Amino acid sequence: MRASFYEGAGRFRIGEAPRPTPAAGEALLRVRRVGICGTDLHIYQGHLDHRVPRGGVIGHETLAEIAEAPAVSGFRAGERVVVEPLRVCGACRACRTGAAYLCYRLKVLGVDEPGGMQEYWTVPTARLLRVPATLGDDEAAMIEPLAVATHDVRRADVKCGDAVVVLGGGPIGALIAMVSRHRGARVVVSELNPFRVDILGKLGLDVVGPGRDLAAFVEEWTAGDGADVVFEVTGNAAAVTAMTGLVRVQGTLSVVAIHAEPLPVDLYRFFARELTMHGSRLYARDDWDEAIRLAAAGAVTLAPLVTRRLPLESLPDAMELALRGGPAMKVLIEVTVAA
Amino acid sequence: MRASFYEGAGRFRIGEAPRPTPAAGEALLRVRRVGICGTDLHIYQGHLDHRVPRGGVIGHETLAEIAEAPAVSGFRAGERVVVEPLRVCGACRACRTGAAYLCYRLKVLGVDEPGGMQEYWTVPTARLLRVPATLGDDEAAMIEPLAVATHDVRRADVKCGDAVVVLGGGPIGALIAMVSRHRGARVVVSELNPFRVDILGKLGLDVVGPGRDLAAFVEEWTAGDGADVVFEVTGNAAAVTAMTGLVRVQGTLSVVAIHAEPLPVDLYRFFARELTMHGSRLYARDDWDEAIRLAAAGAVTLAPLVTRRLPLESLPDAMELALRGGPAMKVLIEVTVAA
Repeated sequence: MRASFYEGAGRFRIGEAPRPTPAAGEALLRVRRVGICGTDLHIYQGHLDHRVPRGGVIGHETLAEIAEAPAVSGFRAGERVVVEPLRVCGACRACRTGAAYLCYRLKVLGVDEPGGMQEYWTVPTARLLRVPATLGDDEAAMIEPLAVATHDVRRADVKCGDAVVVLGGGPIGALIAMVSRHRGARVVVSELNPFRVDILGKLGLDVVGPGRDLAAFVEEWTAGDGADVVFEVTGNAAAVTAMTGLVRVQGTLSVVAIHAEPLPVDLYRFFARELTMHGSRLYARDDWDEAIRLAAAGAVTLAPLVTRRLPLESLPDAMELALRGGPAMKVLIEVTVAA
Repeated sequence: MRASFYEGAGRFRIGEAPRPTPAAGEALLRVRRVGICGTDLHIYQGHLDHRVPRGGVIGHETLAEIAEAPAVSGFRAGERVVVEPLRVCGACRACRTGAAYLCYRLKVLGVDEPGGMQEYWTVPTARLLRVPATLGDDEAAMIEPLAVATHDVRRADVKCGDAVVVLGGGPIGALIAMVSRHRGARVVVSELNPFRVDILGKLGLDVVGPGRDLAAFVEEWTAGDGADVVFEVTGNAAAVTAMTGLVRVQGTLSVVAIHAEPLPVDLYRFFARELTMHGSRLYARDDWDEAIRLAAAGAVTLAPLVTRRLPLESLPDAMELALRGGPAMKVLIEVTVAA
């Protein structure tokens, strides 16, 4: 079968590998589509070499079909599934207290262990979720990032009527904005990339674009109160500097982006306004269920977020495309074509 | 009457002033004791000159007795009271949503408006709380900082069995530790000042003192999990750097100290462990009620925290003493002696 292998910063090799054999409790998947996410770009740049082995297969935003599954699992060949790409220890504090996705010994499939950027992939059946027939393959490949967004919005406890600011209108920012809007919140997205501004507009989202003063906008928009919830999804230091100034008394800051380096945070503002900031990572099973429900109900629009689809052979080009930003939102790898 | 006046950074003048006349709804108080707190030291150093007028009277940790009060208020001459030193607008977002102590136009008595460092003081009767007879004057003067601590512990939602780390064992840190212990939490205080370490030990608190590795201690103490709640009460950058490393998955960081400058915070840790950090400021009326209840019940020990008591005439010396740190915990000003 065809597979891709991480060979160190900036290098992927596409080659042949033996088809894997499922262990007890595992299904053999035929992978259709795999999204490229920010974590994959960190891997590509060599930032996660302490976790990703040389020769490792990445990819954790996967749509696949069942090739083989144990009868007892209830899955049948040909069914489309998405993959919750986590392996947890079951014994640590996080696992014991019901937040297993934060397992102290968490392994992410596609980072620490083999992922979906290969023709066939073996995954425990307990980590598979069925895809509703009404969703196209591109939309289904967006369920994983949508589960990130449903998690983020749930954890930030966005309520009907809330004024929500999303810093960064990439795929995750756009999904957070749509899930928040579905909850009845008023939402604005701050985004500088004109290509993305255009797509956000087509999704019916209000955008504060380049050349506009976000703080002044929020001040006026909220009649001086500040926003109820601000999501930081840019990963850049300027947004971290700005975010504390946008939030109302006892409001919430949600850190969704990955910030590799410690960054200056206005702690005086935390004190004076009793702000709350939390990190938000991955998803519980509930967040997947909600993501599938929202996608199937059309409560969020997924297709326009997929701006490129490239074959597995073009993985290096796809990485460069996603890394450059510019005219791209979600880039998908089409690993196999539906039979 | 005698009064003290702030005359700019490093300068107080003690002099005479006419006795103030209470307006409608106000009581005339004869002030007994006023604590010096971190905010007062900021004022003394000129950091709050945008809020404190020249010639202003500071002091917001006050024990007083009623000199005169409207009959309708229910207060009678001679009764001992403490003062909730806040004036709020009643109309802003914070006031409308039940967090009036965070009023967008908040005035603090003793900062923005005249405070207790004078023989007589007029205060709205709605801001007075009676002091139980079982408490001595020194203990009663500690009710205001105790209300800060009950607020901090309530807002951090400290639970029975929690592992709590308090960074900084000054008066507020010691009170937070005692209130947390009263809730059934396991508590350690990190403090470097040997004089304070000694007092904390006498209060029966476990201390991680100078020369010990706090992170290693917490790691072992919590069997690798991390602490449930960490209170940052030092106000220094090293503690802000260290704090994120001490907390368990989905644990809580409470920022109690005032940090004038933005400081680097490890946001990766927020993401990876889904940490929550919140600011904690002042108190609601509930926090005062709880403070008085805990003090009256002997659930917290207040007297050993008062390490010096000086007359109003020595206010400049008292400020220097409190500012130097060293062999001091709470320094009180004895404005008048009980009749």
